[in-house]
Amino acid sequence: MTDPKWWGWGGAERRGAVAAEALEMLTELLGPPRRSPPVALDQVRVADPAPLPDSIRDVIGSDHVLTGREDRIRHATGKSYPDLVRLRSGEIEDAPDAVVEPGCHDEVAAVLDACTRENVAVVPFGGGTSVVGGVDPARGSFERVIALDLGRMRSAGVDRRSLTARLGPGLRGPDAERALGAAGVTLGHFPQSFEHATIGGFAATRSAGQASSGYGRFDRMVTAVRLAAPAGELRTIDTPHSAAGPALRELIVGSEGVLGVITEVTACVRPRPEERRYEAWIAPEFASGVEIVRELAQQRVLPDVVRLSDRNETRVSLALSGMGGAVRRLLDGYLRLRRQARGCILITGWEGTSEAVGLRRALATRALRSGGAVALGARPGRSWYRGRFEGPYLRDELLDLSYMVETLETAHTWTRLGELYHAVSGAIRDALQAQGTPGLVFAHVSHAYPDGASLYFTVLAAQRVGHELEQWRAVKRAASEAIVRTGGTITHHHAIGRDHRPYIRDEIGELGVEAIAAVKARLDPAGIMNPGKLLA
Amino acid sequence: MTDPKWWGWGGAERRGAVAAEALEMLTELLGPPRRSPPVALDQVRVADPAPLPDSIRDVIGSDHVLTGREDRIRHATGKSYPDLVRLRSGEIEDAPDAVVEPGCHDEVAAVLDACTRENVAVVPFGGGTSVVGGVDPARGSFERVIALDLGRMRSAGVDRRSLTARLGPGLRGPDAERALGAAGVTLGHFPQSFEHATIGGFAATRSAGQASSGYGRFDRMVTAVRLAAPAGELRTIDTPHSAAGPALRELIVGSEGVLGVITEVTACVRPRPEERRYEAWIAPEFASGVEIVRELAQQRVLPDVVRLSDRNETRVSLALSGMGGAVRRLLDGYLRLRRQARGCILITGWEGTSEAVGLRRALATRALRSGGAVALGARPGRSWYRGRFEGPYLRDELLDLSYMVETLETAHTWTRLGELYHAVSGAIRDALQAQGTPGLVFAHVSHAYPDGASLYFTVLAAQRVGHELEQWRAVKRAASEAIVRTGGTITHHHAIGRDHRPYIRDEIGELGVEAIAAVKARLDPAGIMNPGKLLA
Repeated sequence: MTDPKWWGWGGAERRGAVAAEALEMLTELLGPPRRSPPVALDQVRVADPAPLPDSIRDVIGSDHVLTGREDRIRHATGKSYPDLVRLRSGEIEDAPDAVVEPGCHDEVAAVLDACTRENVAVVPFGGGTSVVGGVDPARGSFERVIALDLGRMRSAGVDRRSLTARLGPGLRGPDAERALGAAGVTLGHFPQSFEHATIGGFAATRSAGQASSGYGRFDRMVTAVRLAAPAGELRTIDTPHSAAGPALRELIVGSEGVLGVITEVTACVRPRPEERRYEAWIAPEFASGVEIVRELAQQRVLPDVVRLSDRNETRVSLALSGMGGAVRRLLDGYLRLRRQARGCILITGWEGTSEAVGLRRALATRALRSGGAVALGARPGRSWYRGRFEGPYLRDELLDLSYMVETLETAHTWTRLGELYHAVSGAIRDALQAQGTPGLVFAHVSHAYPDGASLYFTVLAAQRVGHELEQWRAVKRAASEAIVRTGGTITHHHAIGRDHRPYIRDEIGELGVEAIAAVKARLDPAGIMNPGKLLA
Repeated sequence: MTDPKWWGWGGAERRGAVAAEALEMLTELLGPPRRSPPVALDQVRVADPAPLPDSIRDVIGSDHVLTGREDRIRHATGKSYPDLVRLRSGEIEDAPDAVVEPGCHDEVAAVLDACTRENVAVVPFGGGTSVVGGVDPARGSFERVIALDLGRMRSAGVDRRSLTARLGPGLRGPDAERALGAAGVTLGHFPQSFEHATIGGFAATRSAGQASSGYGRFDRMVTAVRLAAPAGELRTIDTPHSAAGPALRELIVGSEGVLGVITEVTACVRPRPEERRYEAWIAPEFASGVEIVRELAQQRVLPDVVRLSDRNETRVSLALSGMGGAVRRLLDGYLRLRRQARGCILITGWEGTSEAVGLRRALATRALRSGGAVALGARPGRSWYRGRFEGPYLRDELLDLSYMVETLETAHTWTRLGELYHAVSGAIRDALQAQGTPGLVFAHVSHAYPDGASLYFTVLAAQRVGHELEQWRAVKRAASEAIVRTGGTITHHHAIGRDHRPYIRDEIGELGVEAIAAVKARLDPAGIMNPGKLLA
């Protein structure tokens, strides 16, 4: 693999072209493409780094304190749409003064200690895949800021008997799965960012993988965490349950680097599946598809993966995604045959022993059929499985053509999910219209629970050239306000970071914010940890 | 139902005699019984109440401020063994100056406000069933203390479509199930304290019911909570998941009344089961029984109820419990026949649709048989089900005969569960021996997870008459220190209260204690909430 692109997602060898038919559709719906490649690396404007105090080099060694231009730029943003807009134009907001690479918990603790004494802000940095500004090198009230890159902390130890694993925070998804696979187990955590995101980041942001219905969200897998805070160490007990007061584990998980650095995660693992079976179905329409997913969840027969696309996503994403032509022709044929012009694609996936897959699939199939779903078979299911990490690569290609690609997610109870769906998609459409760039909004349900589900929206529009960030802000604000009005959560699995901060009070209340701030004041008295994130 | 006994568990009409054969066994193993009835109510020593400020009566009405002697005594303790020892002897430590009964969230808030201004300590009081001193009327640094009895807050509203219910904190288990049953749903939360404990208490202590393997622990059922804190209201969002920072819900759940008063709980519910099927099995011995439960948990085919008794519990509890003679004779016959003198009873229970029960039972049965378990059939299973809330009634009878009855619970990973079992049971045996009252120690596994399980110990011994509390303290200390040494949790589902406070630092560390204290300082600046509990 080549080095990941500094201005986009993943290695350059994974670049692909947007299919001709997709380009035709985009041209028709959004307007013609306009080629706009990223600037060259040496054109990115970045200020000279403020000099770091020697004490940081002293505790960790000069080899692990990087101040090169490229290193700093590579740690200057996450991978949100506005991040990519900024990177591609060479107009980044700021860069860390150095990238510091600790090798273990004690080195993290020593760096935090030095930074507290020397007034240096610290941004914990895992895979750098935040899409909410979670790794922005904000300085807060400090003159200097470092990115604390955890990439050297990649230990992995498996307790096969208890089916748990102790994992270093810097392990990327594939590294973790390789280490676990050698012991015959898997985490089963496969978010779209899997190839680049890290264990520490999964925990710090309450990540949810595509197979969360089966394997659980990451926060439900975690049994214990270890935190290096400026004020000391906090380690939660690794018993399967405890009634010893409030769950501190749940205070550290989701803490987004503002309380300290997660230096170890203990998580439940499962035997590697003997079999993986992925299929596609067509639900008569989105509302009836939602009812099917609700039945599956409430009858406790959810597949490990369940994803229901609305009608627009069904049409557009098939053209855009790796599934492409063959599947789409198959689907079109089906829809014509069944007169299901409003049909919505539903992906189901089961993993486990062959027997368990067979049994669970039989139960789910009955619920699918009785809800009116029509089977498309395993081929489009496998096609989805192969392409399940492709979204962010495709986004780079679309940005090259001056199309805006934004995604956002929320969740609500089943009772209010339809209302949330209409409120958010309507608000985004109106905002795009007001920007003079009418666009496409579509959504899928991809994480289902007995009491409700998530909604994941994708927004496509022609960029307002020269005003890309203003356009994005208008869409983001409209969507967020619609979510808050409808009582949904501002984020189902992307976290708060910087971009959702204006809405945290709506979600947890003033006293909730102050409760977290009180913990932060105790664990990070100087306030060096990840300024400007999570809390207002 | 008559009024609950002030000195024991439940209504006086539920009193029963200890079976003759059980008494014979106890005499042989622990020494002869010595009849010691509780003192009469008017013999209980209790100081006159300190007068309360008028402002409390003003906000809630005089009718809901009780200062009668019996009301105060009934709110003076929980239902732990040392509580009962104190009550029965008439030597309680203290009583609240008044029992205050708010009717809604706003009245709770107004009372907390008045108590903050007037320097009155507040002990939230649900069912009063704490077995760790969680409702002791400790005054801390205050001269006056009230018990805030939530018994009037019994609302229940069901969202049938999302399968959630909003429940008042004062609903006792049977009240909640009645209200939910009318809507065709159930919580499925059946701890041994079910008949008297409340929704608010379940949440505040991270309760786990006997069917936790199927329905989940209470903290996993809760989707949202509302807290009235002295500093204001804290309400968590009721979406099925959120990645908006640390989970404040998990800070309030388990907070044991030290942060504020839980005034509403939203929890997942399930359709009422069509069928309940309970059975008993015999595992060859405790260690192989544990392996069976581990397999069930890790293959994800756990019954809704799974309870494995060790050999001592199998022998003693059958004689002591409601299961009594017939089942025991059946069991003895089996054991002789199979030459399984070390056999351990294992109760399994399934609830749900008939089809789901059938299917899940078939999968579990295979794992049970392949682990060497022998079926005893449905009769002893039903017998366990009928007697599942009887333990605390029986305790009263044994106390009447001057036998000590203490229970305590812990949990660990599968890898260390055996070590924990031997360490704790050994430590208790040694402590009893040192007290000159060699006794019986036995345990069961009743809450199983993929990564580990709980252990619930019962201790029986002759009381050291006149030194009952000293004897209890020695046992409690020995068990707790063994738990801490072995890395188990000090409490799986009874909470910290007062009795486990010396061990909270071992479990969550100094910084963990300080993190919770920081939240408390913000939510309860005057420190009026439940002094002397949870935190040191």
